Amino acid sequence: MPRNLPTGLFQLLPAGRYRASPEELRRYGSDETEDLNFPPDIAVLPETADEVSRVLAFCNEHRIPVTPRGAGTGLSGGALPVQGGVCLSLEKMNRIVEIDRENLFAVVEPGVITQTLQDAVEAVGLFYPPDPASKSACMIGGNIAHNAGGPRALKYGVTKDYVYGLEAVLPTGEVIRTGGKLLKNVAGYNLTQFLVGSEGTLAVVTQATLKLLPLPTVHRTLLAPFDSVAAAARTVAKIFQRGVTPCALEFMERAAVAAAEERKGRKFPGGDSPALLLIELDGMHEAPLDADAESVCAVCLEEGASDLLVAETREKRESVWDLRRSIGEAVKKISPYREIDCVVPRARLPELMDAIRETTARHALSAISYGHAGDGNIHVNILKRDADPARWKTALPAATRELFERVIALGGTITGEHGVGYLHRESLALAIGEANVEILRRLKRQFDPNGILNPGKIWVKALP
Amino acid sequence: MPRNLPTGLFQLLPAGRYRASPEELRRYGSDETEDLNFPPDIAVLPETADEVSRVLAFCNEHRIPVTPRGAGTGLSGGALPVQGGVCLSLEKMNRIVEIDRENLFAVVEPGVITQTLQDAVEAVGLFYPPDPASKSACMIGGNIAHNAGGPRALKYGVTKDYVYGLEAVLPTGEVIRTGGKLLKNVAGYNLTQFLVGSEGTLAVVTQATLKLLPLPTVHRTLLAPFDSVAAAARTVAKIFQRGVTPCALEFMERAAVAAAEERKGRKFPGGDSPALLLIELDGMHEAPLDADAESVCAVCLEEGASDLLVAETREKRESVWDLRRSIGEAVKKISPYREIDCVVPRARLPELMDAIRETTARHALSAISYGHAGDGNIHVNILKRDADPARWKTALPAATRELFERVIALGGTITGEHGVGYLHRESLALAIGEANVEILRRLKRQFDPNGILNPGKIWVKALP
Repeated sequence: MPRNLPTGLFQLLPAGRYRASPEELRRYGSDETEDLNFPPDIAVLPETADEVSRVLAFCNEHRIPVTPRGAGTGLSGGALPVQGGVCLSLEKMNRIVEIDRENLFAVVEPGVITQTLQDAVEAVGLFYPPDPASKSACMIGGNIAHNAGGPRALKYGVTKDYVYGLEAVLPTGEVIRTGGKLLKNVAGYNLTQFLVGSEGTLAVVTQATLKLLPLPTVHRTLLAPFDSVAAAARTVAKIFQRGVTPCALEFMERAAVAAAEERKGRKFPGGDSPALLLIELDGMHEAPLDADAESVCAVCLEEGASDLLVAETREKRESVWDLRRSIGEAVKKISPYREIDCVVPRARLPELMDAIRETTARHALSAISYGHAGDGNIHVNILKRDADPARWKTALPAATRELFERVIALGGTITGEHGVGYLHRESLALAIGEANVEILRRLKRQFDPNGILNPGKIWVKALP
Repeated sequence: MPRNLPTGLFQLLPAGRYRASPEELRRYGSDETEDLNFPPDIAVLPETADEVSRVLAFCNEHRIPVTPRGAGTGLSGGALPVQGGVCLSLEKMNRIVEIDRENLFAVVEPGVITQTLQDAVEAVGLFYPPDPASKSACMIGGNIAHNAGGPRALKYGVTKDYVYGLEAVLPTGEVIRTGGKLLKNVAGYNLTQFLVGSEGTLAVVTQATLKLLPLPTVHRTLLAPFDSVAAAARTVAKIFQRGVTPCALEFMERAAVAAAEERKGRKFPGGDSPALLLIELDGMHEAPLDADAESVCAVCLEEGASDLLVAETREKRESVWDLRRSIGEAVKKISPYREIDCVVPRARLPELMDAIRETTARHALSAISYGHAGDGNIHVNILKRDADPARWKTALPAATRELFERVIALGGTITGEHGVGYLHRESLALAIGEANVEILRRLKRQFDPNGILNPGKIWVKALP
């Protein structure tokens, strides 16, 4: 039995639902955020909302920190048990409770893998759009906690736009239910939307009601290589101004493409150019999609694309997306890094790209950028490479701070879809102001008076 | 000078910004909710966020109730100064600050009339979808307070889906800013979404950043008469199951159509049938819209539509919508009434229509129903007509309660788009449960510790 934990904790659930070996605690101590590791004292694997409630009520009474965990694919350290205590892993709550084809809603538990849900609904002609790059591993619960996006957010919105109801357990053990299969609902403040994106600090989601759409049946996937990052960035807003809304509009600079090519052992079409836009259109009918694709091609060529490549088969399309999705991991293999998930108004993208280049140059750091250009959401990976450790230690926070300041000056913010988590808690006040931080802290206390739920996240100062 | 108000209140703004005549106070004491009237002691008309802040800080210090007001078109009594005090009318804050065609956002003050914003953005080829029936009079601030919907919510979502940033003044006078022109933003809890739909009880919105879309250029408007309410209701979910998402799908029963016809002095095509569906499709291309329209027609005929009428010109289309939008007022002219804004999962619509019929029959009351069938959101107007006043007084609350209970048993809730306001505060616990009510009250206190902002709404018990 781990030290420091009351024996009563081990009588709450069946014996097989605890994990305590050093290897397991090490695994539950990491997510995909850099090389950080904060092992919990114990990992607990509930199977029902009632079990979650029992664990939380006990930990609340005994002031034991509880860190909820989905698949551990987060990039801001949201699932790291930075104060030890209990890792509450939702991995066993992985049932798709219902796919309601009459009302177009799915009801799922938090441990359902995003891709599993998408496959299940697509098999009956329906569509759950949010598609974080980690969708083959990440879980709906984590997607809700961080309000996950992905390429398709551009046309279809982010996770919050699909969450219409929740069952959740408060840190006190109280089980609440919000919303339902209702497209309109103004009975009381919108608790559903307040919980989405709260990074597991207010409540533990145990069931979600998610809106589904009819499945688009037709796609056009284009690759547009550009001779400069600036030209590619400038093109993005112009596409929308032509009245076309692609379902994805991704930007990759050459170094990002190269990392993915090396990892996958195959070439990205057009990937030798300094910058690449990957543009996808979807819909239900061929002809209008072709018309939109022509508009997109025309804009790209007007703005200086050196070529236009079409992924004509489903296999080619999937191959391109597989390469795109592999960039994140590929870049992170190069060296120690810090990933910045900045977002600006779409038309400020050229200025954001300038800010990234100038900031990293001033601090003699190298960065690789790629991401959801259509949303103005770029993932900037600042790489240590062969930098002297002492210089890395001072230059990285200075460059991060400077980049954040420039992003905010552009009307942007510090995180578009990864969350504040552990990594960026010191920058939250920069993004939203001290006054807003204080309001959010007051609201947090109403949910979690003892500050046991996911402590050490979002805030710099301890709670309560 | 009105009684009971400290003289300092009248030194906060220029003299011309106060209204105190009996006629004016009577006007500021009403909205569109039944015949209710609660005159404030004074109406104050600020022109800037700073002025709003001064008024709120003063009233907070002196514990004076403040009721924010937009155009006074609300249907749940949200703008009624039920405890007297100050009516804070935002009517003079009516500037469209910016239409950002590069990023597809509008920045507006709360007193902008919804139709005015729509006309302004449509003039530059853009689109702001939310379209409450009162759009020619209602204001964006009120739309945000109540998370207004309207027919197009079906395809395009409700007001919350377009609010990406707010400037708002807390009851303490503190001005906060949330969000921005950012399609993705997870820096801290989602205060923006928490304020939308909070019915002016948490903060006074002084500026909003609203997402715009490209303007759809093609429409198909169909009217499908049915021989029974049940057949029309059954058809609704079937249309979506065919993979078609209309931009509007409205239901009207014969009595609703008749009321509008009488008011407007012209006939609704197909309006003599017991039930009518008004279905509109929109998009950017003719051919796919024709294909979708054919699918809709096929479903309607399969489900028993007696005919299918097409509004072929823009004039005919607008004439049909004008009739549809006039139903609300027309029905309310018939006699004293209570409007119930219930909403159920779309496929439960036939059961909702049964519940309405059975409940009103059991209590010997008559009702006229119409509304946003595609959303499962039906406006039920229970009419007094020639009922004995004593019987009306007991039968109305009993029927309302019974209908709410049946709606909730169907997985629905008590208000889809009108809000809880003053009218339905006693039913909120029925809808969301006592535990959730208590959570919302705790959150309210964090914004409004002295309970001065829009008191007497949402809650039964007084605050703080």
